[in-house]
Amino acid sequence: MPAFNPLVERLAPPPVPSVFAWGRSYDGSRGPLIDLSQAVPGYPPHPHMLSLLGEMASSTAYCGYGPIEGDSGLRSAYAAHVSQIYGVALTPDNMHITSGCNEAFVSAIMAVAGPGQTVLMTNPFYFNHDTTLAMMGVKMRTVSCHPEDGFVPRVEALAAAVTAEVRALALVSPNNPTGAVYPPDLLLRIFELCRDKDIWLILDETYRDFLPEAGRPPHGLFAQKGWQDRLIGLYSFSKSFCIPGHRLGAITAGPKVVEQVAKVMDNLQICAPRAAQAAVAKALPLLADWREENRREIVRRAEALKAVMATVPDWRVDAVGAYFAFVRHPFQSLESAAVAERLAKQAGILCIPGDYFGEGQQHYLRFAFANADVGTIMTLGDRLREFDSLRSE
Amino acid sequence: MPAFNPLVERLAPPPVPSVFAWGRSYDGSRGPLIDLSQAVPGYPPHPHMLSLLGEMASSTAYCGYGPIEGDSGLRSAYAAHVSQIYGVALTPDNMHITSGCNEAFVSAIMAVAGPGQTVLMTNPFYFNHDTTLAMMGVKMRTVSCHPEDGFVPRVEALAAAVTAEVRALALVSPNNPTGAVYPPDLLLRIFELCRDKDIWLILDETYRDFLPEAGRPPHGLFAQKGWQDRLIGLYSFSKSFCIPGHRLGAITAGPKVVEQVAKVMDNLQICAPRAAQAAVAKALPLLADWREENRREIVRRAEALKAVMATVPDWRVDAVGAYFAFVRHPFQSLESAAVAERLAKQAGILCIPGDYFGEGQQHYLRFAFANADVGTIMTLGDRLREFDSLRSE
Ligand SMILES: Cc1ncc(COP(=O)(O)O)c(C=O)c1O
Ligand SMILES: Cc1ncc(COP(=O)(O)O)c(C=O)c1O
Repeated sequence: MPAFNPLVERLAPPPVPSVFAWGRSYDGSRGPLIDLSQAVPGYPPHPHMLSLLGEMASSTAYCGYGPIEGDSGLRSAYAAHVSQIYGVALTPDNMHITSGCNEAFVSAIMAVAGPGQTVLMTNPFYFNHDTTLAMMGVKMRTVSCHPEDGFVPRVEALAAAVTAEVRALALVSPNNPTGAVYPPDLLLRIFELCRDKDIWLILDETYRDFLPEAGRPPHGLFAQKGWQDRLIGLYSFSKSFCIPGHRLGAITAGPKVVEQVAKVMDNLQICAPRAAQAAVAKALPLLADWREENRREIVRRAEALKAVMATVPDWRVDAVGAYFAFVRHPFQSLESAAVAERLAKQAGILCIPGDYFGEGQQHYLRFAFANADVGTIMTLGDRLREFDSLRSE
Repeated sequence: MPAFNPLVERLAPPPVPSVFAWGRSYDGSRGPLIDLSQAVPGYPPHPHMLSLLGEMASSTAYCGYGPIEGDSGLRSAYAAHVSQIYGVALTPDNMHITSGCNEAFVSAIMAVAGPGQTVLMTNPFYFNHDTTLAMMGVKMRTVSCHPEDGFVPRVEALAAAVTAEVRALALVSPNNPTGAVYPPDLLLRIFELCRDKDIWLILDETYRDFLPEAGRPPHGLFAQKGWQDRLIGLYSFSKSFCIPGHRLGAITAGPKVVEQVAKVMDNLQICAPRAAQAAVAKALPLLADWREENRREIVRRAEALKAVMATVPDWRVDAVGAYFAFVRHPFQSLESAAVAERLAKQAGILCIPGDYFGEGQQHYLRFAFANADVGTIMTLGDRLREFDSLRSE
């Protein structure tokens, strides 16, 4: 058998399926499995969304190849949407539709950094960002975020890490895995840092529709002079519309960036799935109220999680925000994967070990609380207390 | 503005949109535009396919993330389908579903070759294969195919090109752009070559459902001992089911290869679109007769093209097969892009310049005849003769 690409062979298998496997060996004795592992909304798409998807998918209009950059209907609708959120005036030329936000990240990275070049990220990081760089032969460097800062990065630490080899800084806000929301003024200072150092800023805002406060722009970067030659915004339609299976994401950037991304996307998959594009183009304005109600619901879930975790001795919520909490478990001598595995098998609580998100995260577990309703979240207290007593047996 | 990734920046813009632009400046004076540019079937999907797509897309069952390797229903249905075509017994473990065959190619290449490693292809080649390697920093070497061989490669030439750096040989049969169908015995000898040289064989069979003869397996490679550790078969559901907009393709390989591909796919886009997977799983057995009728129709179109081209002096069909003909134009002193551009603007015939498929193809144009019906194809004679007289004015 010939060799595999060493860059791919040395990657660990994708983590989510192995976590699911732990869940499958839970015997149900503590009640139904509580899945806090995958970053998915625990509620279904709106019925109107489903009917739009059905309508578009059964139409001959979207069976053919479409424009690489995305269907003009969705590029326009998304431009209007982004303009409204950030209080700016962006155009369809600023938009590139992708098949999900992982593909948006791959395409953005490929556009700006090749094998051997360096991209800066935070630690902890979203694991697919790490493995994507590794598979492409792009070097990664990380800047640590700290519990005392709620896992928000420090500008000085970022600045110190931007040496001459660094081509881009890639950040996620609201953050996966910590849930941390980077404040607008911090993002502005980071943007200015990237301008001063002349590097790209890639900002993954997959969770921006779940901010604790409504109505305020997540940041003002799209209003900054020169943003088009510096900033690449990433987004996913998976979470807000509850349609990860339909695979749709987007890039917001200057037209010169879009032009490079289009070359990458043409190679990767020609164009994003088209029926979903047509459906989301209609749903973006139509389902605004429903999305706002979901935002509120996720905030309620976050509050429930904070409340219930305060009742469990020795467990600490070191960061919590949109979708995720980064929870410190009390087992000093156990690695995070061992804790998560036992938590799944013995307590029926599925979550992702902190270690999967970077070195030095062994004390943490990621709880994707968006995936469970308030009632379910409230049962975590009993389960965790019981688990702790089990563990000391 | 910071620099782009030089590997991407130096790629030419995707060719298909620029060809479409030529078509848009045709004034209609010779009759309706004849689009022989894109490799798409000129007929719509079966109504049953459309209703399945609509049904699955509007179901909550396929809104969530699915297994990276593909939904088990489609992996099983496709395993049964491939087993039947090739007269072998493959299993769902041999199948990895992707979001189209371009993504299958990217994933297969990434699994076996990293930046700086070498992949061997033919010249002419499918342009996205060339640009994909270039963007990944994988080195490409080509072996020329010749008109006197109907553009089928010679085993000796391939053998001579497989030096120590070569990790994989990537072929397309039936070929894009030439239409050439590689005979089973040739493919067997190529497989043996790859075994002897211990390299991977990647075989893109996007057009295998349009072979001139029905019922015979395209080749016997999936019955060869050790194929699972050597051969990676690629396929697209775009052409056979007329659903390129739904983005669905597949890889057939050994489980060890599938495991590496899954790591790549997880990074690229987590999983392929799921509603289309569910729809195609049902359609694979259901629409077999319809696909066979389409195969016959494409054969009739090939016959029509051969017949009509024989009536045009100095134009020569140097290769023709499933979907494509590689046509030699008579203009010695003009580059293929200049000929194609004038052909579009003056004669309303849209096709792709040979030069886009590799160096030394300036005398050729690719006619994707599958895209036009027999009646339309028959009008090419008048148009081309008229165009020739225009040209000599
Ligand atoms: C930060 C982040 N980016 C991207 C993605 C991928 O989203 P998509 O489903 O759009 O590919 C996720 C999904 O979990 C994510 O957490
Ligand atoms: C040889 C070849 N491979 C792959 C593809 C891409 O097909 P898909 O639509 O499945 O990505 C094409 C499409 O034209 C092709 O000609």
